[in-house]
Amino acid sequence: MHDGIKDRVYESNLDLQRQGLVVLTWGNVSAIDRDAGIVAIKPSGVRYEDMRPEDIVLVDLEGRVVEGNLKPSSDTATHVELYKRFVRVGGICHTHSMYATMWAQARREIPCFGTTHADSFYGPVPVTDVMTDEEVGGPYEENTGKVIVRRFAGMDPMQVPAVLVAHHGPFTWGPTPEKAVENAVVLEQVAKMAFGTVLVNSQQGPISQTLLDRHYLRKHGQGAYYGQG
Amino acid sequence: MHDGIKDRVYESNLDLQRQGLVVLTWGNVSAIDRDAGIVAIKPSGVRYEDMRPEDIVLVDLEGRVVEGNLKPSSDTATHVELYKRFVRVGGICHTHSMYATMWAQARREIPCFGTTHADSFYGPVPVTDVMTDEEVGGPYEENTGKVIVRRFAGMDPMQVPAVLVAHHGPFTWGPTPEKAVENAVVLEQVAKMAFGTVLVNSQQGPISQTLLDRHYLRKHGQGAYYGQG
Amino acid sequence: MHDGIKDRVYESNLDLQRQGLVVLTWGNVSAIDRDAGIVAIKPSGVRYEDMRPEDIVLVDLEGRVVEGNLKPSSDTATHVELYKRFVRVGGICHTHSMYATMWAQARREIPCFGTTHADSFYGPVPVTDVMTDEEVGGPYEENTGKVIVRRFAGMDPMQVPAVLVAHHGPFTWGPTPEKAVENAVVLEQVAKMAFGTVLVNSQQGPISQTLLDRHYLRKHGQGAYYGQG
Amino acid sequence: MHDGIKDRVYESNLDLQRQGLVVLTWGNVSAIDRDAGIVAIKPSGVRYEDMRPEDIVLVDLEGRVVEGNLKPSSDTATHVELYKRFVRVGGICHTHSMYATMWAQARREIPCFGTTHADSFYGPVPVTDVMTDEEVGGPYEENTGKVIVRRFAGMDPMQVPAVLVAHHGPFTWGPTPEKAVENAVVLEQVAKMAFGTVLVNSQQGPISQTLLDRHYLRKHGQGAYYGQG
Repeated sequence: MHDGIKDRVYESNLDLQRQGLVVLTWGNVSAIDRDAGIVAIKPSGVRYEDMRPEDIVLVDLEGRVVEGNLKPSSDTATHVELYKRFVRVGGICHTHSMYATMWAQARREIPCFGTTHADSFYGPVPVTDVMTDEEVGGPYEENTGKVIVRRFAGMDPMQVPAVLVAHHGPFTWGPTPEKAVENAVVLEQVAKMAFGTVLVNSQQGPISQTLLDRHYLRKHGQGAYYGQG
Repeated sequence: MHDGIKDRVYESNLDLQRQGLVVLTWGNVSAIDRDAGIVAIKPSGVRYEDMRPEDIVLVDLEGRVVEGNLKPSSDTATHVELYKRFVRVGGICHTHSMYATMWAQARREIPCFGTTHADSFYGPVPVTDVMTDEEVGGPYEENTGKVIVRRFAGMDPMQVPAVLVAHHGPFTWGPTPEKAVENAVVLEQVAKMAFGTVLVNSQQGPISQTLLDRHYLRKHGQGAYYGQG
Repeated sequence: MHDGIKDRVYESNLDLQRQGLVVLTWGNVSAIDRDAGIVAIKPSGVRYEDMRPEDIVLVDLEGRVVEGNLKPSSDTATHVELYKRFVRVGGICHTHSMYATMWAQARREIPCFGTTHADSFYGPVPVTDVMTDEEVGGPYEENTGKVIVRRFAGMDPMQVPAVLVAHHGPFTWGPTPEKAVENAVVLEQVAKMAFGTVLVNSQQGPISQTLLDRHYLRKHGQGAYYGQG
Repeated sequence: MHDGIKDRVYESNLDLQRQGLVVLTWGNVSAIDRDAGIVAIKPSGVRYEDMRPEDIVLVDLEGRVVEGNLKPSSDTATHVELYKRFVRVGGICHTHSMYATMWAQARREIPCFGTTHADSFYGPVPVTDVMTDEEVGGPYEENTGKVIVRRFAGMDPMQVPAVLVAHHGPFTWGPTPEKAVENAVVLEQVAKMAFGTVLVNSQQGPISQTLLDRHYLRKHGQGAYYGQG
């Protein structure tokens, strides 16, 4: 019944590896069927080369398995929390991609240094608060979702579809799982470009609001004129 | 009628991807037929793997589509502006290649630190002015071409066939689209070498005019003696 | 008789190359059969592409060859010393992988900057003392083992299955040769992430003990809940 | 008559590309037949993918073509000068490999920071003087050879088979063209490791003479015990 969403989540997880964003089993992609209240997600600790479409696990919005023989990703509660709070999100991606993780570990937001960034993220990519000992010692994965949501208070998560969890790594999202993965690809490029930018010019500030508006809005929203749409 | 130029522009666009200069749809190559007054350019937002030779769009020197079913690259007006002002240019290439974009974002010109640079670029690779809010808010892509042209006042664009648009990324050009792509390859190498050079020795200055002359002129102009020509 | 261990050591050595951890002949993996008191190890200076399973050399715990026509790795005495002192280790891996070697050469331990690190290493990856002239001039490879063992005084080598030998490079280990190689893969990723982290934020400190516990123990020991185990 | 040397030089040039040391046509390998007084070298500006074994050019020790239909590499006079002065050298390799060129451009010798370096180079990899305007303006390629030879006054070029030409890039050599290419591979690894080492610890000094001796002599000379020799 849910073969379609399983296939797409399966392919999106494989795409993470093809794009060079993961090593070993360090990454996971999920998608939500909002009508059915079902989230499809990668099984925990399974190697990409061993995974089959039917291994994708289905859980409900309480994180309980509703279909599948394997345990879901240990990060499932984070995904579920984000789906519950970010109601327009259709797919979520988590990686430990190299350059995005450097910024997450350094606990610095990624400034919008250029149009590559502005084309996808409408402002800096934020970094969460460091989680408290209580948050880490409690339901840790759910609390990871909560610190992300807290960081987006007053922001539209669809306009900045990425976050750096402090000391951990990036989460990205989008209307679909494919777009969540694409945003992970863009984030990694942007993180590497920003890394080089601060090394070449440590005083460099972000681009102007005008240029940010121009590039972001050229690709998003009613006035968009990029692509064939 | 214009199949030849379409095929060459198609192949040159694919070459960008083969050379590792682009991810997703971030790059475009064009060529001009100066006799016909026709520019052939990549369609907007089409993935390289989906593109076919017949998808290449033909526009005139006002940027109006004269052949093709797809919208041309959103950067078309920049290409057209450069063709109008740099009259010996036959092909133009735009990418967001990693290291060249770092320098563009850091708004530092790339000094001529060595003979790899001097073999292709007769002096530093310049960076444009930051565009004003008026320039960004007006015909942005055409104005991008104008700030490039302004930066080359008093310079021969054929001797330094590359520029860094501040906060954006590189444009390169040449007598043919193939040479424009080759210059993009060289620029990326040179940008990465210069990145490492300033990290290893922050005080390093450029090479002497004598060495610059020797290497550039060994490959270009009447006294050239490199290659089989 | 020992074909099984030879095949596994052979495959693990090839895996080093597939994972991009070695160039030329710079790396070796071994395994121990503790019941038989036999260590299987790569032959010295043989290229990976020329090596066959039967070329794997068997030595005893004095380092004497007991089977094989080739000389064992010049690092054999280091492996043997570690097997004798780290009694739960089943496989050992030595490489000159790029980023781990940078830290070894810089004689800085790799701080635990994030959860990628904490998932595999329960604390910083230590660096050994610089070996004295006496240690270098004596039985050098055996002494390399001894300085590693000395560095782990009071530590459990199974909880931090990696070390940086000062001025040299990394050794990793695990219950099996496959796990030793996996730890080498993780170490190289962690070393590169840490390299970027200190460049992006030179003041960054390690993660909290609470977060380290959470991640390490999520994957290891009685309360582990990661994977399908 | 000289097919053997042509084939080896051809394969060694292709190897440069396979090893990722060159882009476009930026590199060349040569070999010498000292009995015949003949040097075999890559033709100038020919792409690796278009080159055939019979395109390799033979020159004498005055640099005059004695066999071949193409022009020899523009760097031929440098190779010839080195063969004349470094009488035990059998093969020479020149590249613009990324990290070695960074150090050459930064005009810093590469200190011996670790055993990876010490295994191949018996001391720091030196950088030449900046060439004077007279040297650049005169027989430039021959003078490039002369500044290299000058830099090795009092040194044995077989013990440090690599040099960084200031503002230019590396030359490596060895008893055979294959070994010259291998030394270029090692140099690039060592240059990248040293790059990271100075970024992680800007105060790091070289290894001790005792450790340098141990590693270099473990692989070279009468007491060598590495490999199957």
